[in-house]
Order: sequence, then C-alpha cells, then structure tokens
Amino acid sequence: MVKSLRAEIISIGTELLLGEIVDTNSTYLSQELRDLGIFVFRKTTIGDNRARLAAEIKEALDRSDIVIVGGGLGPTDDDLTREAIADVYDEEPEVNAHLLEELEKMFSRRNRKMPETNNKQAWLIPSAIALENPIGTACGWLVNKNNKILAAMPGPPHEMKRMWREKVLPHLPQTNSVLFHETLHTIGIGEGDLAEAIKDFTRSQNPSVGTYARGNGVDVRIAASAGNLAEAKSIAKPFIDKISALLKDYVYGTNGKTIVESIKEMLIKNGQTIATIESITGGALASDFTACSGISKCYVGGAVTYCNEMKVQMGVEAEIINEFGVVSRETAIAMADAAKKQFKVDWAISTTGVAGPDSLDGKKPGYAWVGLAGPDATVGYELDWPGEREMVIKRVRRMALMTIFNSLKESR
Amino acid sequence: MVKSLRAEIISIGTELLLGEIVDTNSTYLSQELRDLGIFVFRKTTIGDNRARLAAEIKEALDRSDIVIVGGGLGPTDDDLTREAIADVYDEEPEVNAHLLEELEKMFSRRNRKMPETNNKQAWLIPSAIALENPIGTACGWLVNKNNKILAAMPGPPHEMKRMWREKVLPHLPQTNSVLFHETLHTIGIGEGDLAEAIKDFTRSQNPSVGTYARGNGVDVRIAASAGNLAEAKSIAKPFIDKISALLKDYVYGTNGKTIVESIKEMLIKNGQTIATIESITGGALASDFTACSGISKCYVGGAVTYCNEMKVQMGVEAEIINEFGVVSRETAIAMADAAKKQFKVDWAISTTGVAGPDSLDGKKPGYAWVGLAGPDATVGYELDWPGEREMVIKRVRRMALMTIFNSLKESR
Repeated sequence: MVKSLRAEIISIGTELLLGEIVDTNSTYLSQELRDLGIFVFRKTTIGDNRARLAAEIKEALDRSDIVIVGGGLGPTDDDLTREAIADVYDEEPEVNAHLLEELEKMFSRRNRKMPETNNKQAWLIPSAIALENPIGTACGWLVNKNNKILAAMPGPPHEMKRMWREKVLPHLPQTNSVLFHETLHTIGIGEGDLAEAIKDFTRSQNPSVGTYARGNGVDVRIAASAGNLAEAKSIAKPFIDKISALLKDYVYGTNGKTIVESIKEMLIKNGQTIATIESITGGALASDFTACSGISKCYVGGAVTYCNEMKVQMGVEAEIINEFGVVSRETAIAMADAAKKQFKVDWAISTTGVAGPDSLDGKKPGYAWVGLAGPDATVGYELDWPGEREMVIKRVRRMALMTIFNSLKESR
Repeated sequence: MVKSLRAEIISIGTELLLGEIVDTNSTYLSQELRDLGIFVFRKTTIGDNRARLAAEIKEALDRSDIVIVGGGLGPTDDDLTREAIADVYDEEPEVNAHLLEELEKMFSRRNRKMPETNNKQAWLIPSAIALENPIGTACGWLVNKNNKILAAMPGPPHEMKRMWREKVLPHLPQTNSVLFHETLHTIGIGEGDLAEAIKDFTRSQNPSVGTYARGNGVDVRIAASAGNLAEAKSIAKPFIDKISALLKDYVYGTNGKTIVESIKEMLIKNGQTIATIESITGGALASDFTACSGISKCYVGGAVTYCNEMKVQMGVEAEIINEFGVVSRETAIAMADAAKKQFKVDWAISTTGVAGPDSLDGKKPGYAWVGLAGPDATVGYELDWPGEREMVIKRVRRMALMTIFNSLKESR
C-alpha cells in the first residue's frame, strides 16, 4: 500500500459546540479528500477562542500534511481565525488594498455602504495568499510553508464549496496513492446478519470492507488503494463481485445512488409513470421524488391531501373514510386508486397515518398505512412503530419508497 | 460567573472521516449539554482505530469532566469502542450473562437466531455499568471513576437519543451554574449590517451575544450564566429587550421557532387557511408546513403539479402556460389563483422555476417565480439566482415562506 497524504479538518465556531448548527461542511470536505486519495486523519470542532484555535492548528500541522480550517472568517469580533493563523506563523495581519477595494465594490453592487466592521475581511498576512470569494464577503487564506498546506475557508456551505473547488483544489499536491472505492446500498437486512453473510471479507486490509448502518438501510464500502486507478480497481473488483453476489437480494444501488434513482430507472425502462397522494408524509415523499433530477420523465406530480375534504376532492369516497377511518387499509387503497385514476398514471402511492404528537381517530402516533396502486392490483401495507413526529414521517416515507422499489423489481 | 462543568464529545467511525454520514448526534448532544449549563469544550471525530481511540479518550478525560463517546458499539470487527475503553481503564471485557440473555431475547422476538458476531455486544468491564438499549442490539457503557464520567452510546440517532435521555442523564452531576439563553431568528438583514446594528452589545461577556449566519437568515444568541435560573434570566433580559427592539423589523421567531410556526400562529389568529401548489419545490414547501405539528388547523394540503398537464388539471389555463411560459409571473399567479379557488382557502402559494441542471423553456437554472393569492390580491415575486439544484430549490422554498410571513405581518 502506497503512503498517502494525511489531512485534518478543523471546524470553528461556538455555535457548533452549542449545537446551533449541524456541521455539513466537514462531511463534504471528507468526501472530497477521500476521492482525492487523501486520508482524513481526524476532525476537530473548537470554539471561537484565539489561543485554543492557534494551538489546535499548530498541532494539526505537526501531525498532518494538509489542514483545512472552516469558519471564523466573518466580520464580527468573535471571528478569530485570521488572528489565530497569524499567531501560528508569528506574523501581523494588515489590510490588503486590493481586497478592500473588492470588498467595497461588492457592497456597492448591492447598493449598500460597507460597514466598518467588515474591514478585517480584507486582512492578509505575508505568508498567506488570498482565496477570493465571488459570492460572499469572507475571503479565504492559503499558506503553503514547510511542505504543509493550511487553507482557511468561510463557514456558509455554498461559499466554502465553491472556494474549495475553484481556489483550494489547484494548490493541493498530487498523491502517488490512488483510492478506488465502491459502496453498495442495501435495504431489508440488519447489520449483524449482513456482517455474518460477508464475514470472509471484512478482515482484509486492502481492499478494506466496512459496513455502516444508515437511515435507509446498511451500506457496504469496499475500498482499495494502489499506485494508479486501474490497479486499485483490479484489487477491489473480485471483492465487489463476490459481495454483490452474496447480497443480491438487498442491494438497491451503488455509490450514492438513491432508491429514487433506482425507481426512476426502472419506471423509464418500463415506460411507466407514477404519482403520489400523501397525508401523513405531507409532501415529503413528493420532494424525495423531485429532488432527483430527470424525474419528470416518469413522475407527474401528486396531491398533499392533508385534510379529509381534500381526499374527497381528489376522488376518495367520503363513505370509506367514515366507515373505516382515515388511517386504514381501505382509505390508503382508495387514495392510491383515486390518484392513479385522477392523474392517469401506471402507479400511484398513498400514505395515511398518525405523525403525532396527538392521537387521531383513536389511532396512536406511529400507526400508518401505505397504499400502492399498480398496473395489476392495489395493495396496502401497515406500519405500527411508535416514535417522535419526525421519525414517524421518515419511516413512512422510507416504507413507501421500499414498497415501490420492491414492486417494480418483482414486476420486471 | 460560576465555574461550570466541561464536556467533550468524541464521534467514532471511519465512515464519518470518509464523509459517508453527517454527524447529527454531536449536534444533539451539544444542545442537550448546553441546556444543562455544561460547557462543551471540543468535539473530535476519529476513525475505527483502537489505539488512537484509547489515546483520545484518555486525553479527553484529562481535560474535561464528562466525555461522551458515540459509535463503534456495533457487532462487527471494526467496532472497537468497547476494546478502547477497556484499554483506558486497563481492564478485560467479558461476556455478561444477563446482557447476553437480553440480546438473544431481542433476536428471538424478531424470529431470528442471533449471529455469533453479536456476542461482543454483551461484553462489559468491571468499572462500567451497562446502559440498556430497548430499541437496538448495541448496549451502552457508563464509567464513573475519579470524578469523571465516561458514557459510550451507539451511533444510530434514535437509539442514542433515547439512551441519553433515559440512561445517561440521571448519572450526570448537578452543576452549580445555570445557563439561560434566548435566540432571535432574523430574516432579511445581512450578518455585517446586523453586527453593526447591535455592536454596542457584542463585546459583553455575561450576557454573551453571538451572531450566526444560517440557511434561513441570521440568528442572534444572548446567553447568561448565574447560580440560578432567575438570576441568569435577569442578567440576559435587558440585552434581549434592547436587541429585540433594534431588530424588530427582522425577527420572525425565537428559540428554534420556525418561520412556519410563526405563519401558523398568524393564520390561526386570523381564522384563515392556506394551501400550496408547487412545481419547482415539488412537495418540499408542503413538507415544510406539515413538519409543524398542529398545522392541520390552517393548512389544508396542496398539489405538486410537476408536469404541465397537472397544472391544467388543477385549474391553470393551458393558454397562460403556452403564451407566457411555465416559468413566468403569469403562470405563478394563475397557479396560486387556481389553488385558492380549488382548495377553497384564504391564501394559496405557488412556485414555478428551473431547478436544473438543464434549462427549461429557455430559462436557466435558478430562475423562478413565487405567486401568492391572498384575500385581496394575487402577487408574483421573481427570483434569479443561479446555483445547484438543491440550493435553488431551497432558496425558492425560503422565499415562498418569507413572502407568506411578510404578507401576513402586513395584513395584521
């Protein structure tokens, strides 16, 4: 195995330690570094404290080749990343005339006067080059010294991502180790059973095999490193083939492919269309579909029939709701049938249930039905799994997608 | 200011370093500790490596009073948290008969034989007590030694949260410092301008005032600590009042209140109802509404008119789409008017636009219109802000919610 570069990510901000925001930046950077074959050694989150921040950056530079710092580049008094980096290199920050001019231009384009407090966003130290930010006021810094790279980027995710791609990537060294990886996404098998099924492979070092329980099932990740991609791939390939064969009943996609993308492919191949009609999931299922680009080839749209009158308006017989209750197999099936007819599609999926916190119609939170009207028949699936509102909605959403996926797979 | 307890959170898992999953657990734990008045000093993420893990836990126990470890309690070979903790206390893990029995029972309730690999989930060391997990196979460990508490919990968020509340919280020491905090959520003002507006307050130590740019605007957090809650509150109160007054045009809620909750309150107070009709946001706006419990008092549901035929079916004249294009002021207004009529509501909000990656109808990704039909008039709002699909959808969603919020505020 070829020695690879080592990186660390430091996320800065008391708001992160207080749980005010979720750190998705470090997840993005981890994926990017992974795909470059750069090994992320650790991630650290610390508060807006100049001395602690400087100490942490120093330690990280001692341990690793590349240190990525995120946040603390705003205009306010508690944005201290610039000061801390200056301390690390023992230099004094000064206002850079060009950066100040750009910053003032940015404000005037928005017809606003630059507040004095933004001045520090035009600072620079001699060792650093500025990473310009065309979509925000915080420019980044990059220092390349003693064979170590330090990059500091702003916290807002879209600013950070663009700066990373356009300004930081070109400065990163080429590695002589390349990583190839493939992730198999499974649904319908527990992590223990899955581990048991593939236990002949999980002790290997290169390729390495890891299993990860996720919201939508369990992932298996096979990764191999070598001097070039073809070689890495050829090391991973036999493992991928054997593990895929062992798990063939459970794999719905690979490498980040969502279950909706798999559904989309099958529908397009079949020349079929689908619609949604939602009560408990209240638009979340529709948004799962529409988050997938190109879905308009098979997904026509849907209804969010949150109140009963809307269910009736969409073609559900009021008598069915009255007789069996709004959360029942009969209502779920009637909703799916009504949507299939109304929206003239081959498949229609319905959800009805109690999200909570209050009971509904004598049914407890976590009780739900999913209905699926297909070319041949309409079926209902029951779910009875108490939990908090958010979790309940999520489970019904997942079950609805699993239901469509399995039905499409069987109908092939 | 009273000395408070110090905590650290260690998240374990190579999948976190590879960016395979987002660490929302540490965000939850940060909020919980914050609300207990316990200061989160740092968060660290490291891989599934026994020696590094043991070293990190030791360091954290040296620095802090409470160390929370998440993940690495699964049944597989790369789940090494138990081994690392045993190393830290220099003890040997052994299978605990009671835990093994409970584990086997859990599998038999699911009509499954326990795989041998799950055996290690019944391990315990003499210094640790077991934290039972009624909803998963990974039990947690808690060690209370030398005035330091170490708690290890499983990675799946719903298992971790329940274990935290039911099993870990009762073991935490009472602090003699209490934190009171209030967060003001603003929309429509930039972070620099906001910082300028409240600059007389941001250098204070107790209460402390921090500003945080977020997806939906900028938050201002005022926090004070004291020996008891009443005292902490009285320290924070004057700051909260003055800052609220300065920002009164921008604050839409406080303490995690979403803009949808504010909209809900105004609608219920007015005795009015609302519906959604979405193209570009494809159900995401409906799901913003339905994520809010109690929303059924004012939100009736909506339509996801993803294809043009569905827009027509919901009452939009085909001629309008043909003449002005599907992404136009006219179509947005016609959609909102149609939904208002069709769903018999006081307000209806529509979205139409190009999410991308491809252009549509000659319009580029990021171009969108929001329509709002109200009791008196129907208006359209244009958005032209290029970006990636996910970001574009998010911005249209935010603009739609801002539009409703502002219109309701003005109509009061």
